[in-house]
Amino acid sequence: MNGFGKLFRISIFGESHGLGVGIVIDGCPAGLPLVADDFTKDFSRRRSGSKGTTPRQEPDLPEIMSGVFNDHTTGAPLMIHFKNTNTRSRDYSLLRDIPRPGHADFVALKKFGGYGDNRGGGHFSGRLTLGLVAAGVVAKKLLSPVVVESRILEVGGNPNIEEAVEKAMEQKDSIGGIIECRAFPMPVGLGEPFFDSAESVISHMILSIPAIKGIEFGSGFHAAKMKGSEHNDRLVSTDGKTATNNAGGINGGITNGNDLVFRVPVKPTSSIHQKQNTIHMATGEMTDLEIEGRHDTCIALRMPVIIEAATAIVLADLMMQAGLVPRIWAKKE
Amino acid sequence: MNGFGKLFRISIFGESHGLGVGIVIDGCPAGLPLVADDFTKDFSRRRSGSKGTTPRQEPDLPEIMSGVFNDHTTGAPLMIHFKNTNTRSRDYSLLRDIPRPGHADFVALKKFGGYGDNRGGGHFSGRLTLGLVAAGVVAKKLLSPVVVESRILEVGGNPNIEEAVEKAMEQKDSIGGIIECRAFPMPVGLGEPFFDSAESVISHMILSIPAIKGIEFGSGFHAAKMKGSEHNDRLVSTDGKTATNNAGGINGGITNGNDLVFRVPVKPTSSIHQKQNTIHMATGEMTDLEIEGRHDTCIALRMPVIIEAATAIVLADLMMQAGLVPRIWAKKE
Amino acid sequence: MNGFGKLFRISIFGESHGLGVGIVIDGCPAGLPLVADDFTKDFSRRRSGSKGTTPRQEPDLPEIMSGVFNDHTTGAPLMIHFKNTNTRSRDYSLLRDIPRPGHADFVALKKFGGYGDNRGGGHFSGRLTLGLVAAGVVAKKLLSPVVVESRILEVGGNPNIEEAVEKAMEQKDSIGGIIECRAFPMPVGLGEPFFDSAESVISHMILSIPAIKGIEFGSGFHAAKMKGSEHNDRLVSTDGKTATNNAGGINGGITNGNDLVFRVPVKPTSSIHQKQNTIHMATGEMTDLEIEGRHDTCIALRMPVIIEAATAIVLADLMMQAGLVPRIWAKKE
Amino acid sequence: MNGFGKLFRISIFGESHGLGVGIVIDGCPAGLPLVADDFTKDFSRRRSGSKGTTPRQEPDLPEIMSGVFNDHTTGAPLMIHFKNTNTRSRDYSLLRDIPRPGHADFVALKKFGGYGDNRGGGHFSGRLTLGLVAAGVVAKKLLSPVVVESRILEVGGNPNIEEAVEKAMEQKDSIGGIIECRAFPMPVGLGEPFFDSAESVISHMILSIPAIKGIEFGSGFHAAKMKGSEHNDRLVSTDGKTATNNAGGINGGITNGNDLVFRVPVKPTSSIHQKQNTIHMATGEMTDLEIEGRHDTCIALRMPVIIEAATAIVLADLMMQAGLVPRIWAKKE
Repeated sequence: MNGFGKLFRISIFGESHGLGVGIVIDGCPAGLPLVADDFTKDFSRRRSGSKGTTPRQEPDLPEIMSGVFNDHTTGAPLMIHFKNTNTRSRDYSLLRDIPRPGHADFVALKKFGGYGDNRGGGHFSGRLTLGLVAAGVVAKKLLSPVVVESRILEVGGNPNIEEAVEKAMEQKDSIGGIIECRAFPMPVGLGEPFFDSAESVISHMILSIPAIKGIEFGSGFHAAKMKGSEHNDRLVSTDGKTATNNAGGINGGITNGNDLVFRVPVKPTSSIHQKQNTIHMATGEMTDLEIEGRHDTCIALRMPVIIEAATAIVLADLMMQAGLVPRIWAKKE
Repeated sequence: MNGFGKLFRISIFGESHGLGVGIVIDGCPAGLPLVADDFTKDFSRRRSGSKGTTPRQEPDLPEIMSGVFNDHTTGAPLMIHFKNTNTRSRDYSLLRDIPRPGHADFVALKKFGGYGDNRGGGHFSGRLTLGLVAAGVVAKKLLSPVVVESRILEVGGNPNIEEAVEKAMEQKDSIGGIIECRAFPMPVGLGEPFFDSAESVISHMILSIPAIKGIEFGSGFHAAKMKGSEHNDRLVSTDGKTATNNAGGINGGITNGNDLVFRVPVKPTSSIHQKQNTIHMATGEMTDLEIEGRHDTCIALRMPVIIEAATAIVLADLMMQAGLVPRIWAKKE
Repeated sequence: MNGFGKLFRISIFGESHGLGVGIVIDGCPAGLPLVADDFTKDFSRRRSGSKGTTPRQEPDLPEIMSGVFNDHTTGAPLMIHFKNTNTRSRDYSLLRDIPRPGHADFVALKKFGGYGDNRGGGHFSGRLTLGLVAAGVVAKKLLSPVVVESRILEVGGNPNIEEAVEKAMEQKDSIGGIIECRAFPMPVGLGEPFFDSAESVISHMILSIPAIKGIEFGSGFHAAKMKGSEHNDRLVSTDGKTATNNAGGINGGITNGNDLVFRVPVKPTSSIHQKQNTIHMATGEMTDLEIEGRHDTCIALRMPVIIEAATAIVLADLMMQAGLVPRIWAKKE
Repeated sequence: MNGFGKLFRISIFGESHGLGVGIVIDGCPAGLPLVADDFTKDFSRRRSGSKGTTPRQEPDLPEIMSGVFNDHTTGAPLMIHFKNTNTRSRDYSLLRDIPRPGHADFVALKKFGGYGDNRGGGHFSGRLTLGLVAAGVVAKKLLSPVVVESRILEVGGNPNIEEAVEKAMEQKDSIGGIIECRAFPMPVGLGEPFFDSAESVISHMILSIPAIKGIEFGSGFHAAKMKGSEHNDRLVSTDGKTATNNAGGINGGITNGNDLVFRVPVKPTSSIHQKQNTIHMATGEMTDLEIEGRHDTCIALRMPVIIEAATAIVLADLMMQAGLVPRIWAKKE
């Protein structure tokens, strides 16, 4: 289902080349100050246009359609909508017959019987993450003073980002990257041993973001090569601070007060400006496909703010479950 | 919450040194043949006793307490219970004051206010995974002919498993490992774009297993270093088969018919037979701690059957949601 | 939360005097034909304007904002929106200080700390049921050939409807009524013994509709006065048909193939054109209040189509859980 | 599914004539004092044996199998089990071929394909409510100082209970009854406008109890015959107290601080000691059936404590969602 969360719950909808995309945010406490300008910073971070991102330029202005009155949340669901204005649907006419490699065209055809809106990726489009970023802005406010920060560690296996992107563009190819996300200062006690461990709910959300194919907390995959004597984080304070943070801030599924740290790989953009071989679904014959249209060379460049938003949404829900967010915001102030 | 799943739903309970551990399995179709012997193979795979696993020897015999009549499931919830018989609680008396490094002792103290049953890890114990393995046996039957298989890729960074374990034992240390899981032949269409992508629900479940701190599907973290032209899996057949499987069998959150493939790191066992430094919660002073009792040198050795079970549980739920499992089993036969 | 359903899931949002109200429908199979005209009949049934209903005249045209392409559902969430156009907010300025008897003003003040949008009832308004009716139109298609029908049994304790309404209008008062809902031909097997009995999930949905304060299935409250020998429905056919239908089509929480039958009381509209006594929240003094603005004399008159829609939504979800609705609609045709 | 609740969540299992019945209670705060004797009072109220109830005499002693340590809850799930000891399975051999009127035999046959354990009603048995009563004992503690009380208003249409029961026994018939439930002092603000109104979640739970076929809050069905000027409850205090309580303590789906009041009809016991006509499923011929075995003349007599328990479970969950129950109980003291 297109929903997530227990007490702070989101539902997304929309298609890349339909009327718009949006999100419903349910469970937000009443009385939280919220104005259009609160969204400016995160949306400018997500926006396309920089080198390595698609030239499509949507204004991406969120319209708050419900749940806010007199610049404060009302306690009723927020619906935030983004109109689609800059769509060029002619680029996408053949996808039903000729599935693009790396894309969801084939599975969409099978799962939705050819009825899916395949223009620009339709409901699978990265454009759906606009709603996530909007909900993330709301969630970040609820988390305060906890802060969520993400950054690019590398793209194409290279920490020199601009250079790697330029080279890939020259090669008419695309590259992936690795993002690290960190939240602090973390409260102790979020998450459950089974099955809603902090790692579980964060992973659930993060791995639904298009192009994310993995996650690791703390020392993650490297932990498999470590000894217990190295990996065990030594407690150095009765508030739970540890000398190292191989656990990424989580023991037994529960946050331990140290920084929450995880990393995710972003796969290279599936659309590339090269001829690719695929199959024609009607004839069963192999065929060459050259994808036109606009697309990112390195989708990882846009990811930090999306990963932050997704993480903030999860943490807001966990903090509400733990009773750490007031039901009426003013009480917190 | 200690529950997971939508149509095929499990709830676990129990503590390592209490009366027992168990699981409730809800939503299992009626008419599935199920007898005690069905559990034998997977439980012998999980059982302790081999080199590198704890010498604690529980018979681990599942008792089916409800939901089965005349050797078939009834459609009502199955409750499967495991009595604890071989507990040595005296080993665990000081954990409340002196949290063990790498364990959940500190977070349990804070989250449950010192009321937790900390004997042997209590509800955090790996013993809770007995229920998972039992539910996995049921789930695997529902998946047929889809098969789930896991294996150890490496322990302590080393593919030579026995040697690495022996060396760690000599060093009174512990080591981690990496497990790969694979399911096939996969139906096309399981999972949703948002937020219940196949990766999301599998990750949710898998990352709630104690000692698992990450997951990657297909080429996973390596994808971040690849180019799109390399990473894109080329379709070679109208049934969705691809020449490579960098996507791990999932596009846009939906299974594509290729093998489902993922890997997880298992951290080194937290309990080691060395003196470790930690903090005394009452005095705030650093203190040395030597953990007695029984424990695995390499918990990864027991993991394959647990990972399989957890994966089978998720796939059974996704297949039921997709209408691929009959409500009354006999209809399938 | 403002969501309901497991596989066919709705989420509503909006306020009476804000920008609009709407609904997100998640889980609708792809390929269901859906055009604007499908909504005409049910919306004209719900519309205000007839004697006994408020003179407010909204065009109430649903806009399908997502999830439909080429006049068929795509399998992605439908978002259906209703713009608010005919609002007269000046009528509702004092509600925060002087709660109207019978309304949610007092609880909204306490639960949302005075931040709620109280214009016209805000998120509590009966206008929110527009989304329900829209989702009901979709659900009714999925149920076919099962039909859901509701009718007014009585208003103000009187089967002569028009007369009773006129009399109440003369008295500047309001009246309630009783609605009966019936669905047929019903499949056998919907619902569970615990806790999602057919009665349970229908009641859950129906009792969230504003002004509904009860429900009874089959002989309902009258059953309490019957003997077992009278109440037991005698089976007369191996397909489950019974000579009587005191059970309302449900045994043990599960539909038995006979007509599903239930009745609900609708309370009299809380807003009346009489002076009423209430309390001034700031001063604590009793005060008289005369509610201006537009309102229904008998809200029960609009209820049949809303009750039908709500019932159809529940049945669609139950039928999807039972595997009785194809994932791709064309397969049904 | 056999589960209910969001933060305070229960799952039930078991069969009337299997090994036992039980319940898993998840989300209970740690540190709540809980000993065997806490269950005594409510279980003696539920127990069979009084005139009008079945002579089957189970000791009905709850065994706490997990989640309690040193006489306090641990924060991990409680599993409470009831062994079946006094079963006489020979009474129930023919139910699969000859469905009993008023019972779930027919629907169970169709839904579970004849695999159901039909001995004594199996999973449909009223014996499953033992788990509810146990969970109710825990929930009532969490609610304190809110108290939940239920009582019988009438049986067989008659307030003179003993007389009515005796007469029905003489006639070898059964009778129904009406139960009223009340909770007080209620906090303001539990429940949501949509779809988790206080009425909705209470109804959901209550209507899953076997033999309950309706519910009404406050003036309920009688409200349909009232005028707005009569029905509107006049606020007489700034804490929300009203002069009357036609709303049953709920406005707009949210508790208003007045007593929560609802009534439910209990149908007459389906099993009676008279010859009844039904159908033989294999031959399709009508046949007479005389039900042997033990059963209640008036199941309503046992209902008050069950209704109380079910209500307390719902209120505990709503209060936890509202942040009114501490995560660690000691903090409350």
